[in-house]
Amino acid sequence: MKAFLLKHFGIDGLALEDIPRPTPRHGQVLVKMRAWSINFRDLLVVRGIYAPKLKFPFQILSDGVGEVIEVGPGVTRAKPGDRVAGTFMQRWVGGGAAAEKSASALGGEIPGVAAEYVILDNNGFVPVPAGLSDEEGATLPCAAVTAWHALVTSGALAAGETVLVQGTGGVSLFALQFAHATGARVIATSSSDAKLERVREMGASELINYKTTPEWGAKARALTNGRGVDHVVEVGGAGTLPQSLEAVRIGGRISLIGVLTGGTVNPIPIVMKGVTVQGIYVGSRVMFEAMNDAITVNKLKPVIDRVFPFAELPQALQHMESGAHFGKIVLKA
Amino acid sequence: MKAFLLKHFGIDGLALEDIPRPTPRHGQVLVKMRAWSINFRDLLVVRGIYAPKLKFPFQILSDGVGEVIEVGPGVTRAKPGDRVAGTFMQRWVGGGAAAEKSASALGGEIPGVAAEYVILDNNGFVPVPAGLSDEEGATLPCAAVTAWHALVTSGALAAGETVLVQGTGGVSLFALQFAHATGARVIATSSSDAKLERVREMGASELINYKTTPEWGAKARALTNGRGVDHVVEVGGAGTLPQSLEAVRIGGRISLIGVLTGGTVNPIPIVMKGVTVQGIYVGSRVMFEAMNDAITVNKLKPVIDRVFPFAELPQALQHMESGAHFGKIVLKA
Amino acid sequence: MKAFLLKHFGIDGLALEDIPRPTPRHGQVLVKMRAWSINFRDLLVVRGIYAPKLKFPFQILSDGVGEVIEVGPGVTRAKPGDRVAGTFMQRWVGGGAAAEKSASALGGEIPGVAAEYVILDNNGFVPVPAGLSDEEGATLPCAAVTAWHALVTSGALAAGETVLVQGTGGVSLFALQFAHATGARVIATSSSDAKLERVREMGASELINYKTTPEWGAKARALTNGRGVDHVVEVGGAGTLPQSLEAVRIGGRISLIGVLTGGTVNPIPIVMKGVTVQGIYVGSRVMFEAMNDAITVNKLKPVIDRVFPFAELPQALQHMESGAHFGKIVLKA
Amino acid sequence: MKAFLLKHFGIDGLALEDIPRPTPRHGQVLVKMRAWSINFRDLLVVRGIYAPKLKFPFQILSDGVGEVIEVGPGVTRAKPGDRVAGTFMQRWVGGGAAAEKSASALGGEIPGVAAEYVILDNNGFVPVPAGLSDEEGATLPCAAVTAWHALVTSGALAAGETVLVQGTGGVSLFALQFAHATGARVIATSSSDAKLERVREMGASELINYKTTPEWGAKARALTNGRGVDHVVEVGGAGTLPQSLEAVRIGGRISLIGVLTGGTVNPIPIVMKGVTVQGIYVGSRVMFEAMNDAITVNKLKPVIDRVFPFAELPQALQHMESGAHFGKIVLKA
Repeated sequence: MKAFLLKHFGIDGLALEDIPRPTPRHGQVLVKMRAWSINFRDLLVVRGIYAPKLKFPFQILSDGVGEVIEVGPGVTRAKPGDRVAGTFMQRWVGGGAAAEKSASALGGEIPGVAAEYVILDNNGFVPVPAGLSDEEGATLPCAAVTAWHALVTSGALAAGETVLVQGTGGVSLFALQFAHATGARVIATSSSDAKLERVREMGASELINYKTTPEWGAKARALTNGRGVDHVVEVGGAGTLPQSLEAVRIGGRISLIGVLTGGTVNPIPIVMKGVTVQGIYVGSRVMFEAMNDAITVNKLKPVIDRVFPFAELPQALQHMESGAHFGKIVLKA
Repeated sequence: MKAFLLKHFGIDGLALEDIPRPTPRHGQVLVKMRAWSINFRDLLVVRGIYAPKLKFPFQILSDGVGEVIEVGPGVTRAKPGDRVAGTFMQRWVGGGAAAEKSASALGGEIPGVAAEYVILDNNGFVPVPAGLSDEEGATLPCAAVTAWHALVTSGALAAGETVLVQGTGGVSLFALQFAHATGARVIATSSSDAKLERVREMGASELINYKTTPEWGAKARALTNGRGVDHVVEVGGAGTLPQSLEAVRIGGRISLIGVLTGGTVNPIPIVMKGVTVQGIYVGSRVMFEAMNDAITVNKLKPVIDRVFPFAELPQALQHMESGAHFGKIVLKA
Repeated sequence: MKAFLLKHFGIDGLALEDIPRPTPRHGQVLVKMRAWSINFRDLLVVRGIYAPKLKFPFQILSDGVGEVIEVGPGVTRAKPGDRVAGTFMQRWVGGGAAAEKSASALGGEIPGVAAEYVILDNNGFVPVPAGLSDEEGATLPCAAVTAWHALVTSGALAAGETVLVQGTGGVSLFALQFAHATGARVIATSSSDAKLERVREMGASELINYKTTPEWGAKARALTNGRGVDHVVEVGGAGTLPQSLEAVRIGGRISLIGVLTGGTVNPIPIVMKGVTVQGIYVGSRVMFEAMNDAITVNKLKPVIDRVFPFAELPQALQHMESGAHFGKIVLKA
Repeated sequence: MKAFLLKHFGIDGLALEDIPRPTPRHGQVLVKMRAWSINFRDLLVVRGIYAPKLKFPFQILSDGVGEVIEVGPGVTRAKPGDRVAGTFMQRWVGGGAAAEKSASALGGEIPGVAAEYVILDNNGFVPVPAGLSDEEGATLPCAAVTAWHALVTSGALAAGETVLVQGTGGVSLFALQFAHATGARVIATSSSDAKLERVREMGASELINYKTTPEWGAKARALTNGRGVDHVVEVGGAGTLPQSLEAVRIGGRISLIGVLTGGTVNPIPIVMKGVTVQGIYVGSRVMFEAMNDAITVNKLKPVIDRVFPFAELPQALQHMESGAHFGKIVLKA
């Protein structure tokens, strides 16, 4: 079968090779992949930033959807023909984060799903919501679960609260959709008025162009009568956190997700405003399942920026690197 | 000014009398009432069931909206001209239930709002959402806050969960609207197919006529693939609780609100299914404010069954007693 | 090997027989048992009340401690020589209750541990705290985890709160110990002044003899300056729940655990007092592990009433039936 | 009466002057002060760091205990003769932090308690636990409530968890006492072996001298078998946060309280370890009351470093500045 293996760091280190098709052992399923999505983390893995000591060759990617075609003994959760998406961490079923769960993350801590056939653990997949295409389902494991974990599982979002989302990457658009579906008010930022127009159509009621309004934290606070927003979904990191701390209300919450910018931060406003900053690193299968229920009940559709053929994974990563995308970048078998 | 005073138990014990208009003291506001709504509790008060030792004459009613026309010294939260709704319990600002808070419930523990002019505490009112009429705002203090407390504050409802609501009284319709706005799936029961059709239009996706399906608990469970619903909003009491315990999932939640039926219940299923039964008795001002945000963001409109002139309060109570209503019964100045 | 099999309902239906020693398969461990404890549920199983359709012969008992002597392939959590206690539900690792988890309860839903050698699932055991003897460790899986789940996991008990425990059975004494270790105030009831003296030594600061004070609910409330207790650990069921509802504060919590008494209950005080009644049916492995940390840090010792030889399991059940015990009844290999 | 007024920034800006004794108005009590305690914040106020735009003269100090000697009309919570401690924020009764609550902080946002007679709001005090002296009670409003808020209200601490406290200032010692009373395991750091010996006597089971072990984060992790501690009470700020992030477990919690060190922090470990960093700025009256229950039930005694006469407030601040104290610095009338 074909698989993408990283031979050395850099997008040019990716090689599409022929390797033996794996066989499911006890408690494993074999999945014939139909679609994949890429995340900023994949770029960090390929660039050597995520895991500088990675052992080559390494099969990358965390997100994908396929059909179960064979099950090993002891498999109780699937049968051939089932359409499934793997969970980002193969051993995070429920409960909180833990070292042994993080150690089972596809495409980073363990080999990923960039292959025609993939082995998943009996506990490491979920059914794909019936209303979604394979490509749409493939967008969920990392970005969508992260947004759900941030807003719902850890954020306990309620209708009527105000959520601020930054930009138009995968996590931010899912956060917008989940916040909107939950009846929250959404303030969105972007550097592009055209993109802002699109997030308005998705349910954001307030828009801030952070290029023309660099003090967008104060602007967001003004949009809430000076009170501040209840929850900021922070994907920028140290570069944007000071504005997020300006935007959030006293006693509010910031989900710290992204590492797009480097740098350091003055923590004093966290104390003075009594803010909770929660680091969010994807989530559990239980969160994934609850999120799928929300997707089904609310007929949500993931936003796909562009679909590449599987063989063009390197080009897809370059497209992500350009930063021009709106929503998820997907690969198709 | 005119006020409805209960002179003895029974609807015929209500007299519309002339009494002196009150004057606001320190920390009090004087409100000229424009609209009221009635609740099943008002009927229980009038019938002598709610507070058998009530001292006559007693000014009834908990729910209403009016305009602040005068403020006493020390008032910080309102000025003349503000449109406000009183909180059901004048001294329940935030936090959990407590005896001293319950002791300040309008129209039961302390005199109510059935008058042209009413005194409220500086901490005992909220602004009415701008999108609502006076009549719509008047429906909120008891029934809507109860539904919000049950589902959101204590229930931590998330998008994608399944909620079962019973019948078409005020609490149940608000619960339906809040659950729908939160992105939950709603199963509704009623004895009338016509009413079920109306709740379908309000967002219920599954309908059960409990007359034709007396085993509606099993039916609700079947509608969730045998798993059971996440949350039942129980307004019937002992008479319907066994079916609710049948409908709810293992580890699920039942908000016990209503006392429409009498009787007793076998508690063993609560243990065996690990169910949480939470008694809900209206809620705090903080809940009221959060709910109003949700109403505003989601442009929710309370369902009004019928509007009576203030002087027809006895007729309005009789209408409620008939059980034919769909939504809230309102009075207008 | 020897095993106790129930051939028909009734204590005289128990037979100590020779059956083949089981062999661990994939993901299973073989444990040589050293100690067991019995629970009221075992009596209900034997009497035919717990599972009237039980298939005979049935190996009973949920609680025990032993040494791992062999592990099947795929076992990651134990090695030969480890001392372990089985979890009550073999498949409840973390998160909330669920039907598929309840279906894996030892000695009720699946065969139990009343044998010299027992098979446990790779996810279905925990290490026994080092400070405990085998007999002490054997008391934990059902009663102690139930008390922990009630007070800590679902009850979020804080130092300074007041907990009421009923009688001197296993769950109640563990609840007393956990509440005391958490810095809570404990009010204990019993029908025996001698037993009350013993619970005083264990940390209960207030004692009520419910024979001489049948209105113990009002008495408990008086002991809290009329406010009511924060949490009642209810093991009696419908027979004692009315007094518990009298004892608990407005907005307080009752953990409903026991089914010692039958009957039905008027739910109206649950609404009027805004009480949360949480049904508790044992708990997860994650709870068991957290509890073991608390046992270790606080050097807690389970209270053992009496130790019988394994072959005297029927006599041990008869001893439990007499109701004279104080703490856990244990069997030893 | 005598009062300490800050005339300009700097300890030498403090003047003990004669000013008129205040008179309680509606909803106010007049308290004759008996004891005060000082906090690091008082030093920041005096130095001009806390509120650079402070208007002079300004009566400083947040913490104190006294006797109610007169009550204004509308006072419901106290009568002459009651011994009370003021709440740090006069208008934070319950619920979460909010701007309007923070705006009522004694000795910073509003004038403080450094006077012989002080006015408190009807909602702005609590009874002092009977078991405490006036001096002990005076230590509670800022440091103790902060520690309680961090560990219990926001931290939901359970018996058996591991808490790390830094140094021997007021907040850290209260955190140690509350964690110990709750049955948690406590790891304490200090630069002095002599001080570490004293915290051992107070219940810390593991001690780290951060002078001799500058990598104390790794050491703390090693003390938890590599897992990391559940909760770090962080009083140092940016200077110590990197070690705290090293010490805390994946999915763990850091209460960010102190601003002793300046500087900035790399937030990436917060994401990668899924840590929650909660800014804590004192707390509510409801927290104060719950904490007092815990103090009473567990017979806790605040640790007093040294008692100065009221007139020596400047010397007391200098003593705090030296950093040599162990526990709280107190003033006495």
